[in-house]
Amino acid sequence: MRERLYLFDTTLRDGQQTQSVQFSLAEKQQIARSLDMLGVDYIEGGWPGANPTDSDFFRDRPQTRATFTAFGMTKRAGRSAENDDVLAAVLDAGTPAVCLVGKTHDFHVTTALGITLDENVENIRASIAHVVAKGREAMLDAEHFFDGYKANPGYALECLHAGFTAGARWIVLCDTNGGTLPEDVFEITRAVIASGIPGDHLGIHCHDDTGNAVANSLASVRAGARQIQGTLNGLGERCGNANLVSLIPTLLLKEPFRSTLQTGITAEALAGLVKTSRMLDDILNRVPLRSAPYVGASAFAHKAGLHASAILKDPSTYEHIDPAVVGNARVIPMSNQAGQSNLRARLAAAGIEVAPNDPRLVGILDQIKAREDEGYAYDGAQASFELLARRALGLCPDFFEVKRYRVTVERRKNKYNQMISLSEAVVVVKIGGEKVMSVSDSMDDDGSDRGPVNALSKALAKDLGPYQACIDDMKLVDFKVRITHGGTEAVTRVIIDSEDGQGRRWSTVGVSPNIVDASFEALLEAIQWKLIRDRVVPAE
Amino acid sequence: MRERLYLFDTTLRDGQQTQSVQFSLAEKQQIARSLDMLGVDYIEGGWPGANPTDSDFFRDRPQTRATFTAFGMTKRAGRSAENDDVLAAVLDAGTPAVCLVGKTHDFHVTTALGITLDENVENIRASIAHVVAKGREAMLDAEHFFDGYKANPGYALECLHAGFTAGARWIVLCDTNGGTLPEDVFEITRAVIASGIPGDHLGIHCHDDTGNAVANSLASVRAGARQIQGTLNGLGERCGNANLVSLIPTLLLKEPFRSTLQTGITAEALAGLVKTSRMLDDILNRVPLRSAPYVGASAFAHKAGLHASAILKDPSTYEHIDPAVVGNARVIPMSNQAGQSNLRARLAAAGIEVAPNDPRLVGILDQIKAREDEGYAYDGAQASFELLARRALGLCPDFFEVKRYRVTVERRKNKYNQMISLSEAVVVVKIGGEKVMSVSDSMDDDGSDRGPVNALSKALAKDLGPYQACIDDMKLVDFKVRITHGGTEAVTRVIIDSEDGQGRRWSTVGVSPNIVDASFEALLEAIQWKLIRDRVVPAE
Repeated sequence: MRERLYLFDTTLRDGQQTQSVQFSLAEKQQIARSLDMLGVDYIEGGWPGANPTDSDFFRDRPQTRATFTAFGMTKRAGRSAENDDVLAAVLDAGTPAVCLVGKTHDFHVTTALGITLDENVENIRASIAHVVAKGREAMLDAEHFFDGYKANPGYALECLHAGFTAGARWIVLCDTNGGTLPEDVFEITRAVIASGIPGDHLGIHCHDDTGNAVANSLASVRAGARQIQGTLNGLGERCGNANLVSLIPTLLLKEPFRSTLQTGITAEALAGLVKTSRMLDDILNRVPLRSAPYVGASAFAHKAGLHASAILKDPSTYEHIDPAVVGNARVIPMSNQAGQSNLRARLAAAGIEVAPNDPRLVGILDQIKAREDEGYAYDGAQASFELLARRALGLCPDFFEVKRYRVTVERRKNKYNQMISLSEAVVVVKIGGEKVMSVSDSMDDDGSDRGPVNALSKALAKDLGPYQACIDDMKLVDFKVRITHGGTEAVTRVIIDSEDGQGRRWSTVGVSPNIVDASFEALLEAIQWKLIRDRVVPAE
Repeated sequence: MRERLYLFDTTLRDGQQTQSVQFSLAEKQQIARSLDMLGVDYIEGGWPGANPTDSDFFRDRPQTRATFTAFGMTKRAGRSAENDDVLAAVLDAGTPAVCLVGKTHDFHVTTALGITLDENVENIRASIAHVVAKGREAMLDAEHFFDGYKANPGYALECLHAGFTAGARWIVLCDTNGGTLPEDVFEITRAVIASGIPGDHLGIHCHDDTGNAVANSLASVRAGARQIQGTLNGLGERCGNANLVSLIPTLLLKEPFRSTLQTGITAEALAGLVKTSRMLDDILNRVPLRSAPYVGASAFAHKAGLHASAILKDPSTYEHIDPAVVGNARVIPMSNQAGQSNLRARLAAAGIEVAPNDPRLVGILDQIKAREDEGYAYDGAQASFELLARRALGLCPDFFEVKRYRVTVERRKNKYNQMISLSEAVVVVKIGGEKVMSVSDSMDDDGSDRGPVNALSKALAKDLGPYQACIDDMKLVDFKVRITHGGTEAVTRVIIDSEDGQGRRWSTVGVSPNIVDASFEALLEAIQWKLIRDRVVPAE
C-alpha cells in the first residue's frame, strides 16, 4: 500500500515572480491545460485582485481535473477576516482551494509587518477559519518557516498549529529565502511531525538559492511531508522554485520513493514530460536548457568516446534511466552507427528512403553538425532539415534563383508632422530563363507598418511566374527570432512557420548576422519546401 | 580546529565533455589561471595523449599554486603498467598529480571491459603503484562506484582498497551516471569509511542527472569525504558535473560546513565568484543563467511587491546571504506586480528621490503597465525604466532630436560573382539649433556584414557634436530580440546591453512591429541614459 504524494504546481503564481516573466491570459490558460494533462494535483493560478491578468484568468480559467487554487495572504491586523478586502478578492475567485501565506518567523512579524506576535497568530487562525467556513480547501503557506524555526521554534510551531487547528488541509513549510540545506529541512520537517501535525497534512515549498531545491523537497518527503510545491522548469523568483520537471521522474522512478509513494502522474504522462517542459520554454521564448535533468537535449548525450562505445553494448552502462520513459532520446556522436540509423528514420518520415550504410549519410550528418555550429537549429525546423538532406542526395530541384534584393527602412515625419516608418523591398528572381522583378511595401491592410521582413516576404511571393498558383495559399503564421552567440558577434537565427490551404504547417530556419538575410533564407526555404511537397515541376 | 576540505576542479577535463564545448589552448590557459586565482586545490587539465589540444596544454600550462592534475585510465589487462602506452602518455605530461579512472562495478568489468574481476583489481593496484613509484600524487577515480556498491558491495570496496593500499592519496567516489540520490550517497560514503578508508582520503564526484549533484556532494562531505570534484557553472557531460560555483559559497557561508571545515578559498576570492562564473560563459559565448544560485543576475532580484517593501526595511528579510559577499548585487525590477515601495526603491537606486505618496508614482506605474501591454519589458531594461520615470518627473533633458533615418539592406552578387549583403544607414539629428547628417555601412573590421542595426548604430554614434566625447567609450555588448504576440501581428522587442569605459553596463528596450525601429529606440535610450549619468549639459 503506497502513500499518496500530492504535487502542487505554482508556475502561474510563484513562477510568474521570475524576473521578466509576465504571462498573458491565453498563456496562463495553455499552461494550466498542460499541467492538467501532466496530472498534477493542484494548480495555483495566481493572486486574484493583485493584477488584471490574474483576475481575468480566474474568471476565465479552463476546466481541470486538478484542484484550482487561488493564492492570497492572511488578513491584516485590526480588521476581521470577513472585512479584509484583499482576502475577499481571493475568495471571490471561487476556486475550490485557497492558499494563504502567513508569517511564522518572529523577526518578520515584528520587522516587516510591525504587529505583535499574538496578532499574527490570530490573523492566521481567523483567516484559515474564514476560508474553511466558506467551504473551501484551505492551505497555510508558512512563510520563512525554516528560518523562523531556527530562530524561535516555539513560535514557528505555534503559527502552524493555529492554521492546522483552524482547519487547514495543508500546512506548507516554505523555505522562502532558499538558504536552508537538505539535512536541516529533513530534521525540521521531522520536528513538525513530532509536534503533532501529521505528514499527510504537510507540504514543502523550496527555492533554489543554494542549488538544493530539488534535494530539499526530497528530504522533506523522506521525513514524511506529502505535498510538494514547485514549478515547471524551476521557474520562480530569484533562483527559482523546486523544479517539478526534475522531481517527478525521480519520485516515479527512483527508490525509496517509487515503491512507497503514489502520485497522480501516469506512465503515459511521464512520457510527455519533455513536451511539457518545452511548451513552457516556447511560451517564454527561452532556449531550453540543454543540460536540464531528464528533459534536456543533452541529458542523454554521450560525447566521451569510451562512453559511446559502451552504450552500444548496453545503454544502461552510462544511462541512469531509459530516456524514452520521460519522452527524451539518446544522442550519440553523429559519426557512428547509431547516429546514422537515427538519421535514416528521420528521412523516412519525410518520405526519403536511403539504404543503410549509404556513404552520403555521413556527409549529411557532417553538414548538420557544421551548420549547427554556425547557429542553425534543425530540431525546430524539420522542413529545412529535409531540404538540406535532399540537396545532399540530389533530390532538390532548382526552381528559381534570387539574383538580388534591396530593402529600405525609412523613418521620417509625414505631412501631419508625425513620425512614421515605412519599408520597401525589391526582389529580382530568375525563373527558367526569365527575370522577374517585384516590389512591395510593409503596410498591412490597416495601413500600419509591419517592417522590412514583411515587405520582403510580400515582394518575394508577389510574382513567382509558373509557381504562383502553388504558393498563393501559403501564409506566414509565426516568426521567431533568437540571437545566438550573443554579444557583438551576434548571429541571428530566424525560424518561420508557414501554413497552406490544406492545413499543412512547416518550419524553416535561416541564420545570418543580418536579420533581414536570415529571414529571407527562411522565407525562401518555406517556398521551396512547398513546391517540392506539391510536386511542382521546375520551369525550364 | 577546522578540518581541511579540498576542491578539485575538472572544468578542463570532464567539463570539456559537454556537448558542443571544445576549448582552445588559450582558453584552457585562461580558465586555469582563473581557477588558480579562485583558490581551488587541484586543476585537472585534461587527458594527455587523448587529443592534440590537451597534449599542447600540458606542454604549455600556466604556473599555478593549485596542484596540476593529468587524467587517464588504469592500465589495460594483458600488459604491465610500465608497458601501457596510454598510461605512459599521461605520466609524460609531468604533472605533480595523476588521476586514473578505474572500474568498480562488476557489471562494467565484464560487459564493457570484457575482463575478469580479478584482472580489473590488479589493473587498479598496478597502475596506482606505478604512479606512486614515479613520485606523483595518485588518485583513483572509482567509476560507477555507487551503482557498483549497490550491485556488489564487496567487489566495489575491494577495488577501492586495491588503489588505497597501493598508495593512492585520494580515492574518488564517482556517481558516473548521475542517478544516485543524496541519502544513498551519504550512507555509502559512511560505509566506505567504515571499511577502513579514512574520510580525508575520500573524494566525491557527482553528476547532475537528477538535479542533485550539489546535494550529493554535500551529503558525501557530511559523511566524511574531504575532497569535492566539480566544475565551474556545472559544465560537464549530459546534465553536467557538480557546480563548484554553487558549492563554494555554501561551504564557506553555511552551517555545519562553515564552522567545521577549512578550504583554500579566501573571502576576497569569494567576492570574485560572479566574475569567475561570467568568465567561463564569456569563453563559451553563453548567456549567463540568470537564475544561477549565488551568481545569477536574478539571484537577488525581488519582483514581488511584498518582498520589495520588506527588503527596504531590512535586506535579510528576503535574502539568505548578502549578495556582495559573492560579488553579486540586489535588483528590484519593475513589473505590474510591483507596488509603489518597489518603485521608490528602484528610483532611489538610480539617484532619484521621490516622496512616499507622490501622486506621480501612480502615473509612472500606470505608464509601465500600459507599455508592458504593448510589449515593453522593464525588468530586464533598468535604464529604460529610469528614463521613463525621469520623463514623468520632468527630469529628462532633450539632448537632441532625430529628424529622420533611412537604412538600406542590399543582397547581390559582387564582382567575383559571390552573393554578398551590405547595409547602409543615414541618420539626421538636430542638436541645439544645428542639423547633423551621418552615414555608415554595416561592415566590421574584418569586412564582414553585421546587418542593418549595426549600420544604424554606427551612423547614430558617429557624430553627436558636443556629446561625442561622452559617448565615444560606449559599446554595444549584447543584443536580444524577442517576438511578442507572435503570428502575423508579431511585435518585436529588442533589448540592448551597453557598456562604457568605466565598466558600467546598462540595458534599454525598444518595441515595434519593425525590428529596425525597435532597435533604434533601444539605441537612442542607451545614449540618453549615458548622457544623463555623465551629467552632460544639453546643447542650447
